[in-house]
Amino acid sequence: MAKKHTELFQIARYDCDVVGNQTLPSMVRMMIKVSGDQSRALGVTDDKIHSLGLGWIITQHDMYINRLPKAGEEVQITTEAVSYNKYFCYRHFWIHDVSGDECVHMKSTFALMDMKERKMGHVADEVVAPFESEKIKRIIRSEKIASLETPELEGEYKVRYLDIDDNQHVNNSVYLGWMMDVLGYDYLSTHEPEQVSIKFNKEVRYGESIHSLVERDNRVSRHQIKVNEDICAEANITWRE
Amino acid sequence: MAKKHTELFQIARYDCDVVGNQTLPSMVRMMIKVSGDQSRALGVTDDKIHSLGLGWIITQHDMYINRLPKAGEEVQITTEAVSYNKYFCYRHFWIHDVSGDECVHMKSTFALMDMKERKMGHVADEVVAPFESEKIKRIIRSEKIASLETPELEGEYKVRYLDIDDNQHVNNSVYLGWMMDVLGYDYLSTHEPEQVSIKFNKEVRYGESIHSLVERDNRVSRHQIKVNEDICAEANITWRE
Repeated sequence: MAKKHTELFQIARYDCDVVGNQTLPSMVRMMIKVSGDQSRALGVTDDKIHSLGLGWIITQHDMYINRLPKAGEEVQITTEAVSYNKYFCYRHFWIHDVSGDECVHMKSTFALMDMKERKMGHVADEVVAPFESEKIKRIIRSEKIASLETPELEGEYKVRYLDIDDNQHVNNSVYLGWMMDVLGYDYLSTHEPEQVSIKFNKEVRYGESIHSLVERDNRVSRHQIKVNEDICAEANITWRE
Repeated sequence: MAKKHTELFQIARYDCDVVGNQTLPSMVRMMIKVSGDQSRALGVTDDKIHSLGLGWIITQHDMYINRLPKAGEEVQITTEAVSYNKYFCYRHFWIHDVSGDECVHMKSTFALMDMKERKMGHVADEVVAPFESEKIKRIIRSEKIASLETPELEGEYKVRYLDIDDNQHVNNSVYLGWMMDVLGYDYLSTHEPEQVSIKFNKEVRYGESIHSLVERDNRVSRHQIKVNEDICAEANITWRE
């Protein structure tokens, strides 16, 4: 078992949507904050990673949502850097309510980018050692994300200054906002996400305009974020009313 | 002296911009949260206001910024509903750091909208009594906001689902994001707001597209948010490098 790290959060109204449920971007930001805090507490700071010529990237999030946290609620967010292989680090997150019931479970895949070569770096044992993660040989399969075939709805979004985080990238939570927004008020205010898988292929940069495309198939929506012909991110979301 | 209410906040990286300063929208959301929490604690809930056929609106914020809170910092946010007259309630906010130094002071003017008649309602004594606010006859003057004359930069923004808050309005913090964004990365990553006055004239609704216009004059930027020919909000921001 790797080391676990837990933090308490009070969910504010401003973390929530019009019906009082915490938004997906807000949930993802909080979970990623907890992993960042654990890393700093264990001495694996961003500065240390950068000094090795590397930077963390996220390649996929798989979220399983029993229920979304609500405005005014207190939740516990726990993370564990479960295992790693030569290229990937596998981290889990859990959001529990005050009764100890699991609201959300997220499995995320991280990789280290060689900043100079702009390609995947190797995961060095000493980077991961403080987390006591298990070293494995195999590649853990994330959820399969079915590609969108015929876009039903489309929206154009320009990257804004506040979309950029302190790593100079569009924050990974922003893509989920673009994806959901095209579904519109009537759909979003009457449906909740039950399972979300999002895969990040290519970085979107400040000043670029993206197209957010969606196609629905019963309870599943399939999403793409495109810059010109490049598919920068893809997602499948399963909804419940 | 009216009752004061204080809450502690940990400023997360996701509350901050690319240089690690808390963003104006995030600061405003936290301050408004504190006033909402005080109101609920004193029994002046939104439900109670709505049951009187009324709803709170904000007409102006005047912010005086010694320094912006930073990522990782703990701050205290205090609010006091200082005084009121027949039409307006005057509320102050302060953000203090752990040394007790004042980072930000904000003076805000609230009014009660008669939801049926869509016009300003009277501020009933019983609504304000729990705050122990001083009843005054005079209208307190907010900062004068100079109108923009010749727009230098312009951006178009569509209201997104997540811009709408649980009052079914575009959250007041969203306007500041639209206003600042047109100034662009190079300006925003090298300048900090020192004084901000923003006036809200007309509600923007879901699905509308707004134009964010700006003109600069030395250290001051003058902003307008327009829907067609309607000026929905105006602001003056004084910047320091």
